[in-house]
Amino acid sequence: MKFHATTASIPPQNAFYRMGFPKETNLPVNIIPLNPIVFLLRAAQIYPNKLAISHPDAAKGLVEYSFAVWAQRVQNLAYALKMSGIQPGDRVAVISPNCPLIADSHQAILAARAVITPINYRLKKAEVQYILEHSGSKLILVDHEFLTLVEGTTNIPIIVSKDTGRDNVGDPYEDFLDKGRAFSQERGWLGLELEPDENANASLCYTSGTTGRPKGVMSTCRGSYLAAVANAFETKLDKDSVYLWTLPMFHACGWTYPWATTFGFAAQVFIRSIRYPDIWHHFLNSGVTHYCAAPTVQIGIVNATEARRLDNPITAIIAGAAPTAHLIGELEKKSINVTHVYGLTETYGPFTRSYPHPYWSTVSLEERAKLFARQGHSFATADEVRVVYQIPPDHTGPVELVDVPADGKTLGEIVTRGNIVMKEYYRDPEATAKAFRGGYFASGDLAVRHLDRSVAILDRSKDLLISGGENASTLAIEQELATHPDVLEVAVVARPHPKWGERAMAFVVLHLDSAKKYEEDVIKFAESLAKHAKERLPGFARPEWVEIVQELPKTSTGKIQKNVLRERVREKDKEKARL
Amino acid sequence: MKFHATTASIPPQNAFYRMGFPKETNLPVNIIPLNPIVFLLRAAQIYPNKLAISHPDAAKGLVEYSFAVWAQRVQNLAYALKMSGIQPGDRVAVISPNCPLIADSHQAILAARAVITPINYRLKKAEVQYILEHSGSKLILVDHEFLTLVEGTTNIPIIVSKDTGRDNVGDPYEDFLDKGRAFSQERGWLGLELEPDENANASLCYTSGTTGRPKGVMSTCRGSYLAAVANAFETKLDKDSVYLWTLPMFHACGWTYPWATTFGFAAQVFIRSIRYPDIWHHFLNSGVTHYCAAPTVQIGIVNATEARRLDNPITAIIAGAAPTAHLIGELEKKSINVTHVYGLTETYGPFTRSYPHPYWSTVSLEERAKLFARQGHSFATADEVRVVYQIPPDHTGPVELVDVPADGKTLGEIVTRGNIVMKEYYRDPEATAKAFRGGYFASGDLAVRHLDRSVAILDRSKDLLISGGENASTLAIEQELATHPDVLEVAVVARPHPKWGERAMAFVVLHLDSAKKYEEDVIKFAESLAKHAKERLPGFARPEWVEIVQELPKTSTGKIQKNVLRERVREKDKEKARL
Repeated sequence: MKFHATTASIPPQNAFYRMGFPKETNLPVNIIPLNPIVFLLRAAQIYPNKLAISHPDAAKGLVEYSFAVWAQRVQNLAYALKMSGIQPGDRVAVISPNCPLIADSHQAILAARAVITPINYRLKKAEVQYILEHSGSKLILVDHEFLTLVEGTTNIPIIVSKDTGRDNVGDPYEDFLDKGRAFSQERGWLGLELEPDENANASLCYTSGTTGRPKGVMSTCRGSYLAAVANAFETKLDKDSVYLWTLPMFHACGWTYPWATTFGFAAQVFIRSIRYPDIWHHFLNSGVTHYCAAPTVQIGIVNATEARRLDNPITAIIAGAAPTAHLIGELEKKSINVTHVYGLTETYGPFTRSYPHPYWSTVSLEERAKLFARQGHSFATADEVRVVYQIPPDHTGPVELVDVPADGKTLGEIVTRGNIVMKEYYRDPEATAKAFRGGYFASGDLAVRHLDRSVAILDRSKDLLISGGENASTLAIEQELATHPDVLEVAVVARPHPKWGERAMAFVVLHLDSAKKYEEDVIKFAESLAKHAKERLPGFARPEWVEIVQELPKTSTGKIQKNVLRERVREKDKEKARL
Repeated sequence: MKFHATTASIPPQNAFYRMGFPKETNLPVNIIPLNPIVFLLRAAQIYPNKLAISHPDAAKGLVEYSFAVWAQRVQNLAYALKMSGIQPGDRVAVISPNCPLIADSHQAILAARAVITPINYRLKKAEVQYILEHSGSKLILVDHEFLTLVEGTTNIPIIVSKDTGRDNVGDPYEDFLDKGRAFSQERGWLGLELEPDENANASLCYTSGTTGRPKGVMSTCRGSYLAAVANAFETKLDKDSVYLWTLPMFHACGWTYPWATTFGFAAQVFIRSIRYPDIWHHFLNSGVTHYCAAPTVQIGIVNATEARRLDNPITAIIAGAAPTAHLIGELEKKSINVTHVYGLTETYGPFTRSYPHPYWSTVSLEERAKLFARQGHSFATADEVRVVYQIPPDHTGPVELVDVPADGKTLGEIVTRGNIVMKEYYRDPEATAKAFRGGYFASGDLAVRHLDRSVAILDRSKDLLISGGENASTLAIEQELATHPDVLEVAVVARPHPKWGERAMAFVVLHLDSAKKYEEDVIKFAESLAKHAKERLPGFARPEWVEIVQELPKTSTGKIQKNVLRERVREKDKEKARL
């Protein structure tokens, strides 16, 4: 990875890395509105020739931009958007894999005072159309691979990127940048306006809900700034960092890493899709120091044939589900150090983190993994995370939130408030009011507060299992089953039981070797797992049924779809009943 | 340095590390006012038993507090202040060396929604009295060593600290904390109110101006928060950091390090005064990782008899004047890595930094020191630093600020604006308006912008020397003279010259060995320096006169008092004229 990168289009010598303000703006000398776009300007000012973006997957071969060149491209895009009629507050949709198009968009749309609306390209066409309509997007930036998702959309202008990153090759996106270039070279950054209201809308990300219509999560410039600063601080991004984009950038604006990286002057390496050989190629050859991924991708990483111990340690930021002891151990063997964070689209991605203690190094890996798997404590710029129950329960009017005791037992819901909580569900005051009941954002995740005050999720309310009157956490059961040496991945759901009401059913993906081992004798594995469970779990929490599967159903962002598993169980039981 | 520390007064098991709000407060769910007090609460929540404060100089021997215990003491102080009638916005004066009293104050006064007014204990009694009166302080917290500075003050309550850190030993400050304790244990942090307006006043620091009355620099909660975050990020403070207090905490609120350390969960080690053997003792035995100091203290550190190469590198944050190549080289030999920052009390301390480039390691130490000595670029949360001239010049009405070209030659004034600029000069709208002319804070420092866009101070306007019509920077002359192997420290001032108008006069402190070498033959040194200067400086900038001195006159915060040297020159010239 080269520290310096040069290309043909160097910005003018005396370029200013300072934006103007709208005419009516009259800010005090000691206030500048918080806005993450300024990070890129600082990077271009301080390290103009440093590598900002490396994109080996580009359509015509490797494209690399220095901060100065990238800042110039971003400026061009911002001007092009304005010239296309984009007004402050307008939503601009982006449908793109991880590549410069979506990276540019995270900067330029803010620079045009508009709102970035990144759309999950794995959604069905009808869902994409719903989001375009609901968001009221005024323009679509789309990668050529996903053009079919917007084909037939006639009422919104569409700019297609062929992901060439090159001039004069018939790439409409590059031609669009050219439109802005003429103007930007004349007026520079000073001709663009920094959004004067830091609480103005910044991004609109739609949650991939498992049921119902997706909800639009509206963020602010201030929140994006503070969340990005926290992510950069918590994971120590700096000018020597190289961030590999494994997390889809459309997902909660890539947990604000598009701005955390510019805040830290880190280089960004793009891959258009998750291919483990490529990930390992970059680990071994591109100086990668950081990446974010859900456990499911981490499992793919440690199991890739290219996997080996790295000479230079890498920081893996892990979220979406808690990592198992086995996974942590496997990552550590490769010199991949794990930072476990927790969050939702509604909290700009991470808002809590598992903060390690020195004594953790003195306990067993399994014990450490359990401590590590906790959601921990609130993030650097986040307000305190609380675990509460509400009085009166299930009330929709005014409620009081009461903290559970720090006993590691009493269940409550994780709630939070403050600067890295969304502004609202866009055009959905009802859902917003429900989520903000009691003056806090309710996560829907059920948790306990341990004696050391750390917070640990037991389950989402619908994932809880009630067996013989006892509450059992399917997550806790999964954590224990995952320590079985043959288990690669496991998901547990409640299944109706004539005697106990509900009982656990486990869906297991085996390690490749283990799968071969048990091919002829599945019962042997089931017995081994039952023995394992008996040693670790109370009776009511032990799985009654086990099914070996090739893979677990997952959402487009890598979350295990327990609703699909529950549906499968229901179908089975119906069938049984018919027999 | 122990990671864990315990003491008798552990806070209650289920303590909340969350503050209340004033009754009328009605903040949206996604806004929490920025206030650096929350950092301590997070530290106490996440690392309750981790060492927060180590104070070996305490009156009755070593005192250490964990974050939980310290947070409890801070809470007690906040309640005690409120019980003493301190209202939101009231100024509370603190006169203290570096020790828990002033550390507690930086947290608790904010927790009581009051304004901390730290007073330089090296000032004369009349100056202290002026500040007490001008600030309208409602209460004084004073260390017993500096009690004489406030003796006779009858209209303001005074709480004296004997710096024992212990209960029931007749320490009035500890008794004062006790008053708050009863109340705080009943109501906890929830009984205190977080200041709902992030732009409310936070601290009031008086500048040690060389002429005229000191001016009161008013900061805000928001500015203190963002400056502290920037300092923690720029110097990579984390839970493994140990920060040694060499910089006086009264000086611009210790450049916001009282809060940068809590943001990073770092431990703080106090020494009541600068004693080099003690500094080295802590370097070698207390796991120190960071400290801040002006070059003059850094010189004392490298020249201490205890100085040696450290096993674990330390980060030295240096400001006040640019470090010389010799000093950087000497520090590096000891494994002390230098981060060069620049700022003023009006900018919360540091607001620019010299950002290193990889190619710096390929140039000579002398060349590198010159690059390093530049003030560089704006800080992580600071708005862009500009070098400007104003149109029309010397106008007091509306003016336009024009950026100098990035040519490394054109002189302009350093100006800045944004979140880490003071709110105002307290009770001095005239001085505020003058400083904020053109919508920017004018630093009074003259600088150029180099081709690489970095900013370098040439001089304060009054330190510039005009020789034969040429502008010469006394700072640039000093930088060159300081590379002479016999020179420990040097200050250059303009001296009237019959032919050239002005000419440079150098005051030099020699290394101990060199002083002995030239004892008998001062002329030999002067010749050697003249030869050195001839090789490096244009004719008009070479010093015409050299005087060897034992030490240079300095302000109480370590800045060289050029006005004293200029006065000395004037006296000499008057005397000569009389002869």
